[in-house]
Amino acid sequence: MTGDAPARDIASQIETIFHPRAIAVVGASANPDTPGYDYLHSLQAFGYRGRLYAVNPKGGEMLGLPVYRSLRETPGEVDYVICCIPAEHVLELVRECGERGVKALQLFTGRFSETGRPDAAGLERQVLAAAREAGVRIIGPNCMGLLYPGQGISFRADMSREAGSVGFLSQSGNLLFELTHYGAPRGLRFSKAVSYGNALDLDESDFLQYFAEDAETRVVGAYLEGLRDGRRFLAALRHAAGRKPVVVLKGGRTGAGGRAAASHTAALAGPSAVWQAAIAQAGALAVDTVEDLIDMLIAFDRLQGGARANAIRPYAGHRLGMVGAGGGPSTRSVRFAPGAAQDERPRLGMVGAGGGRSVLTADLCEELGLAVPPLPEDVERKVAERAPGLAGWVTNPVDQSILAGSGLGGGQVLEWLDESPQIDLLLANMNEAWAFGRPNADAILSRVAERFIQVAAQTRKPFAVVLGPSDYAEEERRRLVSQVRDRLAAAKVALYPSVERAVRALARFTAYWERRQA
Amino acid sequence: MTGDAPARDIASQIETIFHPRAIAVVGASANPDTPGYDYLHSLQAFGYRGRLYAVNPKGGEMLGLPVYRSLRETPGEVDYVICCIPAEHVLELVRECGERGVKALQLFTGRFSETGRPDAAGLERQVLAAAREAGVRIIGPNCMGLLYPGQGISFRADMSREAGSVGFLSQSGNLLFELTHYGAPRGLRFSKAVSYGNALDLDESDFLQYFAEDAETRVVGAYLEGLRDGRRFLAALRHAAGRKPVVVLKGGRTGAGGRAAASHTAALAGPSAVWQAAIAQAGALAVDTVEDLIDMLIAFDRLQGGARANAIRPYAGHRLGMVGAGGGPSTRSVRFAPGAAQDERPRLGMVGAGGGRSVLTADLCEELGLAVPPLPEDVERKVAERAPGLAGWVTNPVDQSILAGSGLGGGQVLEWLDESPQIDLLLANMNEAWAFGRPNADAILSRVAERFIQVAAQTRKPFAVVLGPSDYAEEERRRLVSQVRDRLAAAKVALYPSVERAVRALARFTAYWERRQA
Repeated sequence: MTGDAPARDIASQIETIFHPRAIAVVGASANPDTPGYDYLHSLQAFGYRGRLYAVNPKGGEMLGLPVYRSLRETPGEVDYVICCIPAEHVLELVRECGERGVKALQLFTGRFSETGRPDAAGLERQVLAAAREAGVRIIGPNCMGLLYPGQGISFRADMSREAGSVGFLSQSGNLLFELTHYGAPRGLRFSKAVSYGNALDLDESDFLQYFAEDAETRVVGAYLEGLRDGRRFLAALRHAAGRKPVVVLKGGRTGAGGRAAASHTAALAGPSAVWQAAIAQAGALAVDTVEDLIDMLIAFDRLQGGARANAIRPYAGHRLGMVGAGGGPSTRSVRFAPGAAQDERPRLGMVGAGGGRSVLTADLCEELGLAVPPLPEDVERKVAERAPGLAGWVTNPVDQSILAGSGLGGGQVLEWLDESPQIDLLLANMNEAWAFGRPNADAILSRVAERFIQVAAQTRKPFAVVLGPSDYAEEERRRLVSQVRDRLAAAKVALYPSVERAVRALARFTAYWERRQA
Repeated sequence: MTGDAPARDIASQIETIFHPRAIAVVGASANPDTPGYDYLHSLQAFGYRGRLYAVNPKGGEMLGLPVYRSLRETPGEVDYVICCIPAEHVLELVRECGERGVKALQLFTGRFSETGRPDAAGLERQVLAAAREAGVRIIGPNCMGLLYPGQGISFRADMSREAGSVGFLSQSGNLLFELTHYGAPRGLRFSKAVSYGNALDLDESDFLQYFAEDAETRVVGAYLEGLRDGRRFLAALRHAAGRKPVVVLKGGRTGAGGRAAASHTAALAGPSAVWQAAIAQAGALAVDTVEDLIDMLIAFDRLQGGARANAIRPYAGHRLGMVGAGGGPSTRSVRFAPGAAQDERPRLGMVGAGGGRSVLTADLCEELGLAVPPLPEDVERKVAERAPGLAGWVTNPVDQSILAGSGLGGGQVLEWLDESPQIDLLLANMNEAWAFGRPNADAILSRVAERFIQVAAQTRKPFAVVLGPSDYAEEERRRLVSQVRDRLAAAKVALYPSVERAVRALARFTAYWERRQA
């Protein structure tokens, strides 16, 4: 299916849609509490450089733009139309789009099949027929449309304007808000994203094919409720997953979820186990929650050489006795040995946690299939040289409170763990709960962050850093933690809000690559 | 074991230790980067009202206090001594404590058996023998000691000074930092807590017996690595769990975790499955992570009548077709019927999420054993009266984006769900990711929070509210979300940082009470 002419055609058609020379917002409004305002304002705020037309039968002016009374009155070509008018006027608009040579019409407009009403579903079918006749592609209805920071296209003004390398397709617009909102502080940045709602015309398979080909996208994520064509989607998924990591969150896995999905995007969802198995079978990663989705997009984008790499490098470090700085392994030739012995598990080294947290991290790692070996001999030798009093006491994870006052810091031990051939994965905890008890928390956190950033820039091992949320009553603490987080995110460090989530991401990341290489 | 004279004796002995008339800090220091400073400063900052003595051979004055050259020189009685001097001087201090009639000696001092060195372990044994001879109880060594906001006792100045009703015993001091640090913004407040390290004398069973009896403690939490006496502990656990909910996080569940525990608190940990089963058997709740620990302490403290109740009320709402406001059920007589039909699952009603999030919440609930029924008839009738256009479309979870512009708010539907006999559990999402896209986010979030607080004050159903972390680059957003969070926490609402965690907590909470009633 994919790789053939129709798949390439659709990818190049969507590429054109993502690069409109002119956009018209039909149903534009000067009222800041309406979608017709949001779209115009977002495109202006993001610095969209094509021509931008506001269309509203009232005419006049808004946001510094002349308002055209209809799409017909707009001067010059229009490639892309955003529709915020009521459902009953959409059919007429589709015809106008056809006349004007519009390539794609995005329907923010809802109240179609998702209402469960036969007349609304009938209108939706008429819209599709009219669009086919007019040669106009439809995105939606009942969706937010395109996000493309590189071209200044957004449906919300408060999204990050920085371009990244994660491509995302979402049946739900609100879920895309959440994803960007909660992911942004941790450095999650999008090449392009699309919210496509009821998938009346362009659907999940089309967008997935596009992201598989898109050179700006290194990692693909998807939130799906129903599928228009399951067989076609799985073929597209297999093709995409063969080219880059794909993370899929499937909603409507259960009876209650499926019922909610029907009223949300009129999607016919399928049972959980079937889809989860099919997604894995296709070589993608299935996740169950938005938290896991964000964590795994960050994992694939940042865990391994996020700071340096242009392309995703499959991880297979622990099969190679991979060493730290310098010449990385050629991983392509490595194959996973099924039934590998226990001591072939990826070996994690950790710094920056207190005693209890170190114990719990070791437990969680073991429970999730990661090994936490004792401090490797080469590291132990270095510890003994530098801090003889700690020799034979400090272990892995390296208990930060044992180091306290010894003159030996966690950052130094982290570098030694990076150099050790006995360690495959690195985990470092900012431990701000402890730092805030010290009189110089500000200096400690900044210094530790810079040290971790140095290691991230050098290491070839997957490396995750933990910094908790900035939920402080005191503004000074909120500011300090946000500042440190921004610094780490800007340095493209893989950031996690808790040790638990970092360990889960490392475990799934390594298991994914093992499965891929099987 | 518990309920007998020795158990009562130990509880009353610990009660005395928690109420010292005078505290001496031995190894007091004017250097803000030392524990000897932290203890003095924390006691002053918390407003400890007993007499406070600084002891240091150098004499002089610090933090406005005269410094005594030895414990012997302090005037008047000393009930409690905090020790920050090196291990080699501890034996002598124990003897001085005996002479001065000190009741308890808390050893912050470490480098005893946790180093794994025979001489250090030998010294530890001598300390215990000397303490027994001197009639002095030991807390520690290698621990932070007591937190008791009600008496102005703390080991860190930046803990919350507000007293709550959660009692906590922790083998790890750093873990207690994390717990208080991450729990505080969500309103987690402690009656009393203790970090007891190596448990040389007073141990986990002693403190658990104490919290079981303590009138200021409604919910008990514990972080344990090893146990001094497993049989005695399980008896104490069974007794405590019979009186109040007990949540146990066991570290050292695996080989690697156990090795870390040995170097942390010299604890001999046991295999995971055995302990998890034993904890459940005793009627307590076993959790695996700090996140789950915080979530479940908040669940038991706040999910049900946190705003009103003085005592914990067992939950059995869904067995009774419990109704909302007004006369709550007498739950004592309700018994869990094993093999209950699927439709006896607790039924959750949710508002405040967008479409995708509603779908995923329904999925997660079903996967964790909660039912998410369609909108109950009584609620549907009210929706149809108020907003006829939504009738037959909006379902449960109530998709906030369907309500948008209808004049019907999520808060109103939440009240109707509370009134409906077809709903047992309530979940409300602040949905700030959406609100921040609106021009009046500030007003929206404040209004929604107040509405949720009203429902929390009235409902007799377990009710959880979700508000995400305040990890914003913009100070204005950080401030706004923190302000809303503080308001919700002060109103004793059960607050969760994600829908996922709220659903997990509700599911474990109801399952816990079902098992208790079996």
